Amino acid sequence: MSNLIIRTIPRADPETIRVLGELGVATVHEALGRIGLLEPAIRPIYPGARAAGSAVTVLCPPGDNLMIHAALSIVQPGDVLVVTTSSPSVDGMFGDVLATSCQALGVVGLVLDAGVRDTAELEAMQFPVWARAVYSQGTIKAAAGSVNQPITCAGLAVRPGDVVIADRDGVMVVPRVRAEDAATLGEQRRDKETAIKGRLARGELTLDVMQLRGLLGDLGVTWVDSAPQS
Amino acid sequence: MSNLIIRTIPRADPETIRVLGELGVATVHEALGRIGLLEPAIRPIYPGARAAGSAVTVLCPPGDNLMIHAALSIVQPGDVLVVTTSSPSVDGMFGDVLATSCQALGVVGLVLDAGVRDTAELEAMQFPVWARAVYSQGTIKAAAGSVNQPITCAGLAVRPGDVVIADRDGVMVVPRVRAEDAATLGEQRRDKETAIKGRLARGELTLDVMQLRGLLGDLGVTWVDSAPQS
Amino acid sequence: MSNLIIRTIPRADPETIRVLGELGVATVHEALGRIGLLEPAIRPIYPGARAAGSAVTVLCPPGDNLMIHAALSIVQPGDVLVVTTSSPSVDGMFGDVLATSCQALGVVGLVLDAGVRDTAELEAMQFPVWARAVYSQGTIKAAAGSVNQPITCAGLAVRPGDVVIADRDGVMVVPRVRAEDAATLGEQRRDKETAIKGRLARGELTLDVMQLRGLLGDLGVTWVDSAPQS
Amino acid sequence: MSNLIIRTIPRADPETIRVLGELGVATVHEALGRIGLLEPAIRPIYPGARAAGSAVTVLCPPGDNLMIHAALSIVQPGDVLVVTTSSPSVDGMFGDVLATSCQALGVVGLVLDAGVRDTAELEAMQFPVWARAVYSQGTIKAAAGSVNQPITCAGLAVRPGDVVIADRDGVMVVPRVRAEDAATLGEQRRDKETAIKGRLARGELTLDVMQLRGLLGDLGVTWVDSAPQS
Amino acid sequence: MSNLIIRTIPRADPETIRVLGELGVATVHEALGRIGLLEPAIRPIYPGARAAGSAVTVLCPPGDNLMIHAALSIVQPGDVLVVTTSSPSVDGMFGDVLATSCQALGVVGLVLDAGVRDTAELEAMQFPVWARAVYSQGTIKAAAGSVNQPITCAGLAVRPGDVVIADRDGVMVVPRVRAEDAATLGEQRRDKETAIKGRLARGELTLDVMQLRGLLGDLGVTWVDSAPQS
Amino acid sequence: MSNLIIRTIPRADPETIRVLGELGVATVHEALGRIGLLEPAIRPIYPGARAAGSAVTVLCPPGDNLMIHAALSIVQPGDVLVVTTSSPSVDGMFGDVLATSCQALGVVGLVLDAGVRDTAELEAMQFPVWARAVYSQGTIKAAAGSVNQPITCAGLAVRPGDVVIADRDGVMVVPRVRAEDAATLGEQRRDKETAIKGRLARGELTLDVMQLRGLLGDLGVTWVDSAPQS
Repeated sequence: MSNLIIRTIPRADPETIRVLGELGVATVHEALGRIGLLEPAIRPIYPGARAAGSAVTVLCPPGDNLMIHAALSIVQPGDVLVVTTSSPSVDGMFGDVLATSCQALGVVGLVLDAGVRDTAELEAMQFPVWARAVYSQGTIKAAAGSVNQPITCAGLAVRPGDVVIADRDGVMVVPRVRAEDAATLGEQRRDKETAIKGRLARGELTLDVMQLRGLLGDLGVTWVDSAPQS
Repeated sequence: MSNLIIRTIPRADPETIRVLGELGVATVHEALGRIGLLEPAIRPIYPGARAAGSAVTVLCPPGDNLMIHAALSIVQPGDVLVVTTSSPSVDGMFGDVLATSCQALGVVGLVLDAGVRDTAELEAMQFPVWARAVYSQGTIKAAAGSVNQPITCAGLAVRPGDVVIADRDGVMVVPRVRAEDAATLGEQRRDKETAIKGRLARGELTLDVMQLRGLLGDLGVTWVDSAPQS
Repeated sequence: MSNLIIRTIPRADPETIRVLGELGVATVHEALGRIGLLEPAIRPIYPGARAAGSAVTVLCPPGDNLMIHAALSIVQPGDVLVVTTSSPSVDGMFGDVLATSCQALGVVGLVLDAGVRDTAELEAMQFPVWARAVYSQGTIKAAAGSVNQPITCAGLAVRPGDVVIADRDGVMVVPRVRAEDAATLGEQRRDKETAIKGRLARGELTLDVMQLRGLLGDLGVTWVDSAPQS
Repeated sequence: MSNLIIRTIPRADPETIRVLGELGVATVHEALGRIGLLEPAIRPIYPGARAAGSAVTVLCPPGDNLMIHAALSIVQPGDVLVVTTSSPSVDGMFGDVLATSCQALGVVGLVLDAGVRDTAELEAMQFPVWARAVYSQGTIKAAAGSVNQPITCAGLAVRPGDVVIADRDGVMVVPRVRAEDAATLGEQRRDKETAIKGRLARGELTLDVMQLRGLLGDLGVTWVDSAPQS
Repeated sequence: MSNLIIRTIPRADPETIRVLGELGVATVHEALGRIGLLEPAIRPIYPGARAAGSAVTVLCPPGDNLMIHAALSIVQPGDVLVVTTSSPSVDGMFGDVLATSCQALGVVGLVLDAGVRDTAELEAMQFPVWARAVYSQGTIKAAAGSVNQPITCAGLAVRPGDVVIADRDGVMVVPRVRAEDAATLGEQRRDKETAIKGRLARGELTLDVMQLRGLLGDLGVTWVDSAPQS
Repeated sequence: MSNLIIRTIPRADPETIRVLGELGVATVHEALGRIGLLEPAIRPIYPGARAAGSAVTVLCPPGDNLMIHAALSIVQPGDVLVVTTSSPSVDGMFGDVLATSCQALGVVGLVLDAGVRDTAELEAMQFPVWARAVYSQGTIKAAAGSVNQPITCAGLAVRPGDVVIADRDGVMVVPRVRAEDAATLGEQRRDKETAIKGRLARGELTLDVMQLRGLLGDLGVTWVDSAPQS
């Protein structure tokens, strides 16, 4: 596996990315057929964290963040770093020094299957990070990895240029070639949900709005007035 | 195990439930003899989440939220949904659509041994949820379960109509027939703790206030001025 | 293992402790050669929690907080309680009653390899706690332990009088005899990082600021313009 | 919660218990409608462990095995001890001393949501144990609990006299009143599976034997000869 | 994501697969540059389990094993089923009925990021399975998935036709196009290790055999005769 | 923290070590006052693994086993390697090559808070290892650590020369200066337990043999003939 840094990657249309970010993880995940989520152990470091952008993928050895430094030489404004390690590690691979550089270069967020530190400073800077752990354990800069090769991050295959959406619900990745489709489907779903929520807010039941009563009958579910004597 | 939806359940007195909610999980748990807690992995989705109400119990297959929809047809204002799955799952079984219906119907909270999504929206709506995970993974509506049958949720046996108390410390369940007793004992404990805290705030030691010095002696614990040479 | 309560322990200079607390966990950990961290499972109960002080070490049986009460008889203003159990437990060993006493006696924080409760009240009081779990499960006062003997807490050996630093990034412990050294090295590191961050904020790359390009070359990492055809 | 030791409990028919034990956990679980399993974290301490008997339920404080001693005063030959703790603990509550007494009294196995020790000796004695952990941590005999009250063990509600089946696949509990039914249904299922396995062994496909082809079609699953070009 | 069953996949040369299986996971992983491992939570159900074959990939909904049945209609002798679920699940998706069919059809093993049951029978049949859990929880046959599409299984991207190697050390996957190369490199590594082991067995040190003394010096590691006074 | 390799350490008397090994973990742990256990996550790689020896302590960076190689230059026959990493890692730091050297040099076992591989070969060689995980992930030899400095391994502080006892129940460490005492106390405990087991095997109850009936009464535990009506 050669240790390459790929300078140029395809990216989705910025307006499409903006729409996907506004729709949010839960809506786009549903619209796209319930795919694309990272494991729920990857959590934002502050509740208001929210980001959407093009994935720059980074593979690091555990406990070594050299390749994150390398990745910063090829990022473009609007990118999200997606970082994984070649074996499980929660070492703190990212802190306020790297976040300062990220913000200067227009990187809009970080998804990291490892640990992060300087979390108070990161919230103060409003640089959003999703990580497996908060841990100050320092890392070294000593071994090779890759930038913009396909990786697996927190259980999901990610290709460079895919669209990353991350918010309080977690992180999802939309394959780049499906980004426009996802935005359209997501807006449809949002509108449909808004309409349903309006009806529910007025007291209608989902059993009626979504027409589920027949299904319950078909499944043999029975309404009774009170608990049978056991 | 027949798949029943029980329409009518006994509920505790609303004023008793209100008092229990004000006392909070830690105080009522102690007052009742240190029983009734769900596992600590069940956490609120925002720090200010707080609820107390009558348990409407829901058993779902993993990855299937049909029975939550069914349960909303029999809830009453002041109820708390208590939902578990028949095998371990963290799929996101509940989001802002169902929460909209819950609020319209007077449901005051949700306890869920599974995943939840739309957490930013849920906090904005101030609909409190306690769950095992935040995870957007969508669920289907395809298989039967039950409503208002006894369940085991996060390690605790819960019967419909039991009083659920949930706050930042987690979730506890008071058997319905013990609710009044729990409220009385809880108020006594709170008053006793308030008195003790007053004395401690003035600098008294718990060793004296709680008369623990003798016990330490009986146990052979020894005060020495400095560490012995090893 | 005799059950001793040691009344007198050496403590670091208060000004040194103050400086270490301001530097924070991540900076001091790096400055000291990347040692001294507790496991990342030990988390603060609210985001703004922050403390630095002299460790008063407490060893309790699981589910028994008697020795925390005993420890409060020998604390001094500026101390941090560091509590562990003799076998794994997440029972709620500490709440607002003990916190009231801690604040009256000048204890500035608690690090606990177990559970904590009354977390809403503790945040309202601004008494910072780092713990493995939030859990209301009550504990008893029935068995002996020790105060101010060396302990292992969340994977780290801690001696009484060591300097505890705790913030949103977690908890670290500085050996007392290295406290002054740590403060000096930490300030140097902070100043160096501030300088680097200034350069990065102006758009320089860490590859240049930290002179990492040569290392990448030595490791055989190669820049290419686009992904090779596979 | 009064601390009772109930001397007399109802038990299922010994021949029914024998049949259930021979059928094993996986078959009876299916036959009974897929209910009754303890969490998969409860594992046998040696591969050949196998037991079936009437549940004598024991609730202990964490780290205290006094009530197991008490339970041995009321067991009958053919019983299985089912032990849980009032809060999570992996302390080693059971070893070869208690196992010697169990075997002398005719107890045929132990299910324990805690830790066990002397595991080499227990295998040599062929006394089967299912536990959450192997851990030598010693326990005390100092606090009250109950024997033969309903408990929740590893996520499952268990009543005294229920039939416990335990083998290499884990542990399940059959409600006593359903034991005979379970044995009959289990034998039918075993016979049906034996017939199916005969057909499969001769090369037939489950798609045909279980008539699943139509379902695949209804679900829109499509057979294609080779991967479509992406 | 269309629900396809791909009938025809490329496979590696059987002799190459045989060689890779004999070399084993640890050796091939090293030979191939330390890539290709599934998470260590995927464990064999008996110590002697050992398999190597061509991956037939299966994606199932959680708690639903229909697509494993579908996969058995397109397997060839020498294949290994590699099964994952679309969200985390430990339900028991595979037992002796499916194993009987697998053996009749020449399938040589199963890798499953979920649960397995009938483990005593599976060992008796000598059908090797690697799984996340042993759990009897039954599954349904109700929802669509895919066969022979690329999947991510236990943290690793797997394509149909890749070579799966599984033994007591866990599971690894060799990209099909690198299989021959991996076999050659693996044999070289094995031979080299055999030579080294011969020297070590005669008492030589790895420091000398692998020429590591200089490195230790370069890193500033110092030999001293006894512990310095602290 | 200087990176030292200490050549000479004090060791306990070989006959004492032999006795402690025969007594085993559970007995010595009890005899010594219930101290000294490593976390239960550290498990033997085969059921019959059993070792006792003098601890040679090794601290490695995560994913780097260079210092194990260094340690082999200073071991003596009868030693047990006790290895930990400076941050959490399950990489496979040890396999059959290093085991070959260990056996040639007289090392009798390995305790490792990380991963191990070549487990089938290690059992065939009868070289016992206790580890946190079985994982083939390869490690590098690139960074400094220490040998025979005090370490914390799996939650326990270990000093070079302490006596390690490891068997199927896990691992414990006896402080060297207490080894003789531990052996004496352990033999007394073993003899006492043998006597008790003789009485229990004849049908006496532990309640009588250990005189626990009075305690149950003092604690308010009540014997009743049958379950009270609820």
